[in-house]
Amino acid sequence: MERLLRKCQIRNQLARECMAECLGVYVLILFGCGSVAQVTTTEDKKGQYLSINLGFALGATFGVFMSRGVSGAHLNPAVSLSLCALGRHPWMKLPFYVFFQMFGAFLAAATISLQYYDAIQTYSGGKLTVTGPTATAGIFATYPSDYLSVWGGVVDQVIGTAALLLCVLALGDQRNSSVPDGLQPVMVGAAVLVIGISMGSNSGYAINPARDFGPRLFTYIAGWGVDVFKAGGGWWWVPIVAPCVGALLGTLIYELMVEVHHPFSPPELQTSCQEAPEGKAGLELEGVEPDCEKPTK
Amino acid sequence: MERLLRKCQIRNQLARECMAECLGVYVLILFGCGSVAQVTTTEDKKGQYLSINLGFALGATFGVFMSRGVSGAHLNPAVSLSLCALGRHPWMKLPFYVFFQMFGAFLAAATISLQYYDAIQTYSGGKLTVTGPTATAGIFATYPSDYLSVWGGVVDQVIGTAALLLCVLALGDQRNSSVPDGLQPVMVGAAVLVIGISMGSNSGYAINPARDFGPRLFTYIAGWGVDVFKAGGGWWWVPIVAPCVGALLGTLIYELMVEVHHPFSPPELQTSCQEAPEGKAGLELEGVEPDCEKPTK
Amino acid sequence: MERLLRKCQIRNQLARECMAECLGVYVLILFGCGSVAQVTTTEDKKGQYLSINLGFALGATFGVFMSRGVSGAHLNPAVSLSLCALGRHPWMKLPFYVFFQMFGAFLAAATISLQYYDAIQTYSGGKLTVTGPTATAGIFATYPSDYLSVWGGVVDQVIGTAALLLCVLALGDQRNSSVPDGLQPVMVGAAVLVIGISMGSNSGYAINPARDFGPRLFTYIAGWGVDVFKAGGGWWWVPIVAPCVGALLGTLIYELMVEVHHPFSPPELQTSCQEAPEGKAGLELEGVEPDCEKPTK
Amino acid sequence: MERLLRKCQIRNQLARECMAECLGVYVLILFGCGSVAQVTTTEDKKGQYLSINLGFALGATFGVFMSRGVSGAHLNPAVSLSLCALGRHPWMKLPFYVFFQMFGAFLAAATISLQYYDAIQTYSGGKLTVTGPTATAGIFATYPSDYLSVWGGVVDQVIGTAALLLCVLALGDQRNSSVPDGLQPVMVGAAVLVIGISMGSNSGYAINPARDFGPRLFTYIAGWGVDVFKAGGGWWWVPIVAPCVGALLGTLIYELMVEVHHPFSPPELQTSCQEAPEGKAGLELEGVEPDCEKPTK
Repeated sequence: MERLLRKCQIRNQLARECMAECLGVYVLILFGCGSVAQVTTTEDKKGQYLSINLGFALGATFGVFMSRGVSGAHLNPAVSLSLCALGRHPWMKLPFYVFFQMFGAFLAAATISLQYYDAIQTYSGGKLTVTGPTATAGIFATYPSDYLSVWGGVVDQVIGTAALLLCVLALGDQRNSSVPDGLQPVMVGAAVLVIGISMGSNSGYAINPARDFGPRLFTYIAGWGVDVFKAGGGWWWVPIVAPCVGALLGTLIYELMVEVHHPFSPPELQTSCQEAPEGKAGLELEGVEPDCEKPTK
Repeated sequence: MERLLRKCQIRNQLARECMAECLGVYVLILFGCGSVAQVTTTEDKKGQYLSINLGFALGATFGVFMSRGVSGAHLNPAVSLSLCALGRHPWMKLPFYVFFQMFGAFLAAATISLQYYDAIQTYSGGKLTVTGPTATAGIFATYPSDYLSVWGGVVDQVIGTAALLLCVLALGDQRNSSVPDGLQPVMVGAAVLVIGISMGSNSGYAINPARDFGPRLFTYIAGWGVDVFKAGGGWWWVPIVAPCVGALLGTLIYELMVEVHHPFSPPELQTSCQEAPEGKAGLELEGVEPDCEKPTK
Repeated sequence: MERLLRKCQIRNQLARECMAECLGVYVLILFGCGSVAQVTTTEDKKGQYLSINLGFALGATFGVFMSRGVSGAHLNPAVSLSLCALGRHPWMKLPFYVFFQMFGAFLAAATISLQYYDAIQTYSGGKLTVTGPTATAGIFATYPSDYLSVWGGVVDQVIGTAALLLCVLALGDQRNSSVPDGLQPVMVGAAVLVIGISMGSNSGYAINPARDFGPRLFTYIAGWGVDVFKAGGGWWWVPIVAPCVGALLGTLIYELMVEVHHPFSPPELQTSCQEAPEGKAGLELEGVEPDCEKPTK
Repeated sequence: MERLLRKCQIRNQLARECMAECLGVYVLILFGCGSVAQVTTTEDKKGQYLSINLGFALGATFGVFMSRGVSGAHLNPAVSLSLCALGRHPWMKLPFYVFFQMFGAFLAAATISLQYYDAIQTYSGGKLTVTGPTATAGIFATYPSDYLSVWGGVVDQVIGTAALLLCVLALGDQRNSSVPDGLQPVMVGAAVLVIGISMGSNSGYAINPARDFGPRLFTYIAGWGVDVFKAGGGWWWVPIVAPCVGALLGTLIYELMVEVHHPFSPPELQTSCQEAPEGKAGLELEGVEPDCEKPTK
């Protein structure tokens, strides 16, 4: 079997990265939205809000494990955008990354709707609705709380995504107190967990255009209809636009408060490490592999 | 005492591996099904669905700690099957592994029924039933939700086990972002946790033929009777067959989306490390021990 | 963008440390008090007491990640005071640290009140009160339980902060069983978690003058009025004074029971490590970087 | 202050170990029983059974951090007994360890009763009772469930403590898949967590004679009276005797199923490492420090 598989090897770097981003977001949404499906269809009997927080957190962790060594595990168009703005990721790759992130989220939504088909049919009485007592669209995409104004939703998503980028940039800053390389996926999950715990109630902490739009598109096609775009006063564009603004804001704050002030570090630290895989540059951001100096020993 | 114990030493590698797999699954089920017993017999007062998820997750973690250095900690016939299919485990050992995995689960079910004897008698009023308001068979084996069709159950178990293999293969892929060797047992537990949180409500996430069949056989013998095979429309074969299919599917997806496309890595990395214990090949799958190069220094 | 940012570089060490402490406490409070806001405004539907414990715990973890490499991540005037008393931090810097810790907490309270503006208005019916059924001042600062006497509150805060210092000093004691350097932020969060779980019900475990006074000052200005200082029998001074006493007590206990009795360790261990960043001296307290000997190899 | 403290230095190894064990158990019980106090006196409003599980788990983690480098962090007479039986701890030290473990637990119970004085008075209406609707003795020591027979209680404690030793021995077995040295305290806490989740409902998982008897003695003296020994049909001796039996049983199982069968490892691995602190031999059990070979480089 190993030999058969090896025949399928693709050597194109961008294609490999797109597949990895697609699989990474797929796993993130499969576990994240899957936990919403479990809580919704069992009416909180087999899970509660905290288990949704854990589902997205561990989904992010395993999504990063799927893809970090290949694509850098952005898993989020807003993260990709920030890294491009910082000059740590080529602008040219941005549209490819974004498309395959969206596509992975779409496929995961389809998988969940297959796995929970009987459960959703039973819970909703066969009627796929976006609002009302047995609404199930919230399993897939985010919708704002009743009390939330659109402007309040924009602020919510900007702050939430800024907090995400603050955490991700601090974790990857080798000159601050960065976490050991192999545990970064776990701490990225912890960041998603604490954002869900402290910023989840207003509008479901999308903080990721792909996480929201991919599954929303799926529900539009799969029977929930045009309401998925109309609900919440035309909410759908907020989790696409606001996270991009928030990501840039969070990046700016971390850079201006901490990173640019680090004393100058000798450049040979970076360059002597020739085996650091190019693709990992994303989340660790500075690229100093903990064991990259081994060959020089 | 140390000297007395040493006289019992067994040098046969396969026998050692079988004992380790047996103890590993024993611990997994002891903690996993034990947490179900606690939640069931206290009627959710000393635990809830999340604590069952944690019980199986930490059970998996400590099961892996028991056995990884000896047998590779498969702890699951579906995992053993996938590793054989990938050429990373000898087919010859498969039946031994499967038998002792089942046997460990059987023994754990017996231990729980001993530890919770008074509790089960009190909760069930002395009648050991598979269905009904005070059913206790669900402490040991999995049964589907009322709404679930058999086909839906097969899909549920296939997707769940595929997700498990995706996570396990990514964790052990040294050329992706693998976790530090000593923390793999923890992350395997995290994978079981998130699957329980996001895919547990349909049919109790067996995703492991040994986890389900061993305890089911125990309940059949210990007084719950033939209903354990009849209930859920003859559900018992689904958590045996579907996880095997799912494990192969998950393996195929990870290999085709990520692993086969890694650029060719120099073989001396693998071969220079002669002290890597053969048995650990299982979960880490590529066998590059983090400290295996020490002797060459 | 990288080049533009670099123009803003500040080289003054104290200024950098103050910014890092400010950002660290900002993140701590943003996640900590944010989780209280979520639980309060959703009336426990999207969170419960445990999620508040997790919010402050992970807030502390990420607060430490923000600042440890620069300022040592005190994040708490009582911790700064203890380190000064131990001779591990210059007294001269103490007022600067304390001011910027307070300021960071103030800014975080302002951010939360912006993000939860709609939610707080809806929950409280537009009336910002300190006591009563829809009180919202408790989102920001701590207030004692009804049954608690002032003296009981002082004891509560002294014991809680002493427990915090015991944990923090043990984690950083290189001659005891200290945690790997990169995981100290996680374990500091775990200490905050367990204190919240075991010492949270009396008065909300402030155990940090900045965590309590910064947000209290914000509520005083932002519409809750002078009641924030009057409530609980003039409670506001307790979470400022008692944590300082408790921190010194905890430090004394750990030093007298464990640290001073360590056998004399050769001083060259400390001094050979010239690249250990000065700023990290705080939480790890002994300053032996795990990889600081690399250059001598 | 540093200089003043240094004058108090005690060089006697046994005295240092006793102080460390005392402080370690103190922290374990302070957080563990503290979380029970919080849940009991708030009637589950600020905590639930899971938070008690977390309280004891993180209490164990930080208890191990307090003492591992000095005394090996037994924290449990049953663990000390097993290590003596295995020849890894001198029998001569056993009574000293046991006494100071008990004493630490006693002091922690006293601290909790001080910290929760107002809360316990209010909750119990000032009457300190062992049984009844407002009983508070269960904050400190364990009492069996109504349905549990004495024999069932013995079985429960034997199985629980055997499971604890299985986990602790596997974590420290360098030739199996042991966890990195600095994370052993965390995984010991995880073992305590999963035992509480899966074996806690019968009788409160004492699994530690010091954890139970020290606080029970405190309640006897502090006003709960002789009922603390009479309740549960004279339950008090079970959590003292049964854990010792269980610990020896768990040790025997792990040794016979896994450890004695490891292939012979070259003794120079052990002996070349002369700087491994003698005291740490306890929990890691094999004494191979990860970094102990540094001086030979």
